[in-house]
Amino acid sequence: MTIPTAERMSRIGTETAFAVSLEASQLARQGKKIYPFHLGDMNIITPPNVMAAAIEAMKKGKTGYAPTAGIPELREALAKDVGVTRGLNLTSDNVSIQPGGKPTIGKFIMVAMNPGDKVLYPNPGYPIYESQIEFHGGVGIPYGYKEGKDGFMLDMEAIRNGIRAGGKILIYNNYQNPTGASSPKGEMEELARLVVKNDLSVLSDEAYFDIRYSGEPMSIASLPDMAERTVILYTFSKKFAMTGWRLGAAIGPARFIDHISKINVNDESCANHFVQYGALAGLQGDNEGPNFIIATLRERRDVLVDLLNAIPGIKCFKPKATFYVFPNVTGAMRRKGVGDVEEFRKLCLHETGVSFCTRRHFGRPLPGETEEYVRFAYSGIDVPLIKEGLAKFAEFL
Amino acid sequence: MTIPTAERMSRIGTETAFAVSLEASQLARQGKKIYPFHLGDMNIITPPNVMAAAIEAMKKGKTGYAPTAGIPELREALAKDVGVTRGLNLTSDNVSIQPGGKPTIGKFIMVAMNPGDKVLYPNPGYPIYESQIEFHGGVGIPYGYKEGKDGFMLDMEAIRNGIRAGGKILIYNNYQNPTGASSPKGEMEELARLVVKNDLSVLSDEAYFDIRYSGEPMSIASLPDMAERTVILYTFSKKFAMTGWRLGAAIGPARFIDHISKINVNDESCANHFVQYGALAGLQGDNEGPNFIIATLRERRDVLVDLLNAIPGIKCFKPKATFYVFPNVTGAMRRKGVGDVEEFRKLCLHETGVSFCTRRHFGRPLPGETEEYVRFAYSGIDVPLIKEGLAKFAEFL
Repeated sequence: MTIPTAERMSRIGTETAFAVSLEASQLARQGKKIYPFHLGDMNIITPPNVMAAAIEAMKKGKTGYAPTAGIPELREALAKDVGVTRGLNLTSDNVSIQPGGKPTIGKFIMVAMNPGDKVLYPNPGYPIYESQIEFHGGVGIPYGYKEGKDGFMLDMEAIRNGIRAGGKILIYNNYQNPTGASSPKGEMEELARLVVKNDLSVLSDEAYFDIRYSGEPMSIASLPDMAERTVILYTFSKKFAMTGWRLGAAIGPARFIDHISKINVNDESCANHFVQYGALAGLQGDNEGPNFIIATLRERRDVLVDLLNAIPGIKCFKPKATFYVFPNVTGAMRRKGVGDVEEFRKLCLHETGVSFCTRRHFGRPLPGETEEYVRFAYSGIDVPLIKEGLAKFAEFL
Repeated sequence: MTIPTAERMSRIGTETAFAVSLEASQLARQGKKIYPFHLGDMNIITPPNVMAAAIEAMKKGKTGYAPTAGIPELREALAKDVGVTRGLNLTSDNVSIQPGGKPTIGKFIMVAMNPGDKVLYPNPGYPIYESQIEFHGGVGIPYGYKEGKDGFMLDMEAIRNGIRAGGKILIYNNYQNPTGASSPKGEMEELARLVVKNDLSVLSDEAYFDIRYSGEPMSIASLPDMAERTVILYTFSKKFAMTGWRLGAAIGPARFIDHISKINVNDESCANHFVQYGALAGLQGDNEGPNFIIATLRERRDVLVDLLNAIPGIKCFKPKATFYVFPNVTGAMRRKGVGDVEEFRKLCLHETGVSFCTRRHFGRPLPGETEEYVRFAYSGIDVPLIKEGLAKFAEFL
């Protein structure tokens, strides 16, 4: 006898990219040198002011429960920070602290979506959107991206079709994983107009908002009539290299945020207490830590994109944000005589040690997709290893 | 326009005890001296070896993601520790690390319970059981406790009736919040036989397993044919005074635990990375920290129970475990001419500053309940304040 499992467990997804990590580490144990471009994790340590403040709070006894929605100081500081960067009028009532960025996805869906509701989500995109939609009984409607002049553009026609098909909720991930796409102003405005006209609710996943190398920051919540219908996913993970600390926030209309905090009470009580003081120090400190992180990542991006574009059959945009690139490898695959992108990935991994994810790790391919893409993350690999890995990769291809 | 809210949000509950905290802190701000017996939090700081190990791990760069099910060392150490204390044969495959004890409740329910399934749960009991059952579409069937010779006993007839009514899942909280009940061996064996005979699945909430002042530890998972159908809720919160660190585990059959870890991937990726090294040091260290915590709590319990029993119209058991007592205050209420237990609570709070929860904070009263109870928690108040508060309380009553 084992414990019977509920039907909903047949509808839950996962991050299939974890399987790539496993494959890479198995090869590494066999002595193969691995160039880890598959990781969305960071090999940059958390800034010292964040660590010091967390340790001080811990030693001062901030080891008991925190308030469910977060310590008041952090909620206020975040309301101010996000208010300024997005041009919004926020108070701490608009902020519910979360144990990471990810919890906001599931909680937003539980609060906003009834079983059977149709939800638009990006594909290629972060696989947890589709998983949480289906797990909680919704119907996911994927929309894709198209190659533009200097970056990926939203497939606006697919979004329009999705709305026509009954989509009521939109998940939008500007500064996008995996494509690195940033919406130009016109594109974001067009999207916001569609949303308002059709009375959609929006989850704006802004996990990479602060991992920006150029251009002015933009949030869809800043556009006319959008704040009242948008929940922002905020995370400390990337800006402060705090992925393993698990701290983020849901930010949006106060009544909706109350509901999210009610799920906090039920699901985990609160986020770690002293960690919140670390994040507070990060927000209130000078920008030395975040600037160092951006400078480090920018150098990696520049090196990586140039080396990729020097390889025949590979075409790679240079994203203005995120720590991902999403090169088109259709030509390289053709040159190698490989028809399947997963086969291509495995071949490259085994032959060169260069480990990356493919388009398939970010959703089922959409009808009509003809080009093949892979994702290189550069958050977990230093410049010398990028150069060394790409040299082997170029030689092999 | 606000974001429309899904129907399931009308079915979510909360910890109504938080309202008592709010009331008490408002009075405190007005200058009233408060004796905080309402808190389930601890005013004891985390042991230094736990803090030191967490800080060391943080500084060594354990600031990136941890594996979804937890770091292997902690899963192994916990499998060993829980295996020894419960007499079970466990490996790390049986352990999924969680960001607290509470996450195991919701995840167990999501994995085990289909909408419409009937779930037996204790009432009075931790209010999150009922909330999570109903939130995820199940039907809760409450069972109560009865006063025995020297402590509260399970209402076995209510459990039998619940099974007859179609109950398929049992939530069992030995070392119980709020009653402080510990099942005698015979009672636990009778319950296990019922479970096996009727093929139920069990969540055994063992949050207070290590907060025991006398008697041998007992888990229902240790009894014949029970391990294969039981998931243990384990938490570091109480044993190591780590409530605000948010770390615990779900422990049970490997296949079921795999499902729970799949929910980890979706809901929060992982628990804080360096915190897991702190907990590991706690498990592997000498027992100085936990022993100090138990000695501190035992002294408080002894003082509190004696003072309560000295008050006419109050009858209080001395629980062998937990940091709660659940005195019968029917007589005291009658003497004061108060018919409603919430009115009694507010009266005592305003007149004496003694702040506690009532039976109502732990579920809707069951048909046939005639006695009135309140809950005193002694985890957040020192002996001198216990004495001072109880003197005022006794005088008032």
